[in-house]
Amino acid sequence: MTTKIISSRDNPLYKELKHLATSSQARRKAGRTLLDGIHLCEAYLQQVGLPPLCIASETALLNSEVTVIVQQCIHSHTQCIVLPDALFHALSQVEHGVDILFVIDTPELTEPQRLLQSAVLLDRVQDPGNFGSIVRSAAAAGIKQVFCSAGTTFAWSPKVMRAGMGAHFLMEIFENVDLEALIARADIPVIATSSHAEKRLYDLDLTQPVAWLFGHEGQGVTEHLLALATHQITIPHLGAIESLNVAASSAVCFFEQVRQITARS
Amino acid sequence: MTTKIISSRDNPLYKELKHLATSSQARRKAGRTLLDGIHLCEAYLQQVGLPPLCIASETALLNSEVTVIVQQCIHSHTQCIVLPDALFHALSQVEHGVDILFVIDTPELTEPQRLLQSAVLLDRVQDPGNFGSIVRSAAAAGIKQVFCSAGTTFAWSPKVMRAGMGAHFLMEIFENVDLEALIARADIPVIATSSHAEKRLYDLDLTQPVAWLFGHEGQGVTEHLLALATHQITIPHLGAIESLNVAASSAVCFFEQVRQITARS
Repeated sequence: MTTKIISSRDNPLYKELKHLATSSQARRKAGRTLLDGIHLCEAYLQQVGLPPLCIASETALLNSEVTVIVQQCIHSHTQCIVLPDALFHALSQVEHGVDILFVIDTPELTEPQRLLQSAVLLDRVQDPGNFGSIVRSAAAAGIKQVFCSAGTTFAWSPKVMRAGMGAHFLMEIFENVDLEALIARADIPVIATSSHAEKRLYDLDLTQPVAWLFGHEGQGVTEHLLALATHQITIPHLGAIESLNVAASSAVCFFEQVRQITARS
Repeated sequence: MTTKIISSRDNPLYKELKHLATSSQARRKAGRTLLDGIHLCEAYLQQVGLPPLCIASETALLNSEVTVIVQQCIHSHTQCIVLPDALFHALSQVEHGVDILFVIDTPELTEPQRLLQSAVLLDRVQDPGNFGSIVRSAAAAGIKQVFCSAGTTFAWSPKVMRAGMGAHFLMEIFENVDLEALIARADIPVIATSSHAEKRLYDLDLTQPVAWLFGHEGQGVTEHLLALATHQITIPHLGAIESLNVAASSAVCFFEQVRQITARS
């Protein structure tokens, strides 16, 4: 494979990339998404392998980190596209980054029938930054599975992946999951946070696998899912603010589990 | 005071508001900022009092929560402005919210000479969402002071305040602080997170006041500040991802402190 230079906005491949960059629907339909920036591309190469397509701006070819990646792609079966800076920037949401993008296929995973290992269940989490931060914290805490209800923000959007900082490639992420059915057949405790709960996070034994259930930023976990959870818990607070951002809240929960596990060993 | 309707984009007050809404520099210079949406306005009324100026869109006047706030303002010395929806939306960054804004004066606080109570020190934190989430978590954990270095994102920008969800009004936030001098005269331990540290968060006694030092999203805490910290600590992880988002990381630290304090009592 060699490098191809595209300099026209009317080039069919460029138009397809533009569509992928600007439309969440297009990404879902194509089963493809864009990785934006050097950090995510390096993480992908390290954790997954070579992408189907690598795109750099003309200026970025002067960057040695980009050259290493492009060379690696050229020596394999990966197509490389070079774009004038203006055309590149119309594809990228990163403002002051290094101009490199991978087009990747989003994984198609078969949903496991049962919850057997520690997992995160997300009920309509809306904000891409929150979703990405939750995936990143979960990966750092050694959790490997994320199950998302319909109505949760798309896991593979560029914004979510930027916040995830490459954690996506270490996780199994299942979308459009029927959380009610999943919880009903869970073999491990399902723990939901609720500001109305009396049991405290710190009262739980978290040294065994658990599934953490978090909900919509404004509305929390849907009532009927909350009712199905094994434990409803609250994170005790000392100030007049009673609720935490869902990404902050999930980090506190995941790392209380890490604290208990590492304290035991 | 009565309600005033502005329908021209050329109205001097409207132009001033537009400037305040779109320029961070204008907000800093004027010592004023905009609170966007019903939640923040209600939190302000509850925690601080009446604002100098209240702005609603024509449509929002049909909303009973907005009417309550506008009536409350009219019965006091607060000026109320009603704008056609199009003019209002040019001032607001909230897409699907209720169209109400307060113009408020940002607090002018005298920086305390010494660190005597638990506090957060922020060294060039860049992302408004992270900053707001840190303020919100700190307030929930009972921390009351935030000290920001020069180069930290502006504490009172609409984006930071939206992420803070009203926590700003419970805190003393000091900007452009010389953190080096502050740390040098600290009477309490200063704890910095660093991925290179060997001491674990969980090895510290956090039942006494401490100052938490967090740094830039990409670069972490500046070397010379890190060297001044009483403890450099790491949050143990179990996965292949080694670092957390700074807002997630701070939540884990603040609530480890809450866990230790509430376990003792």
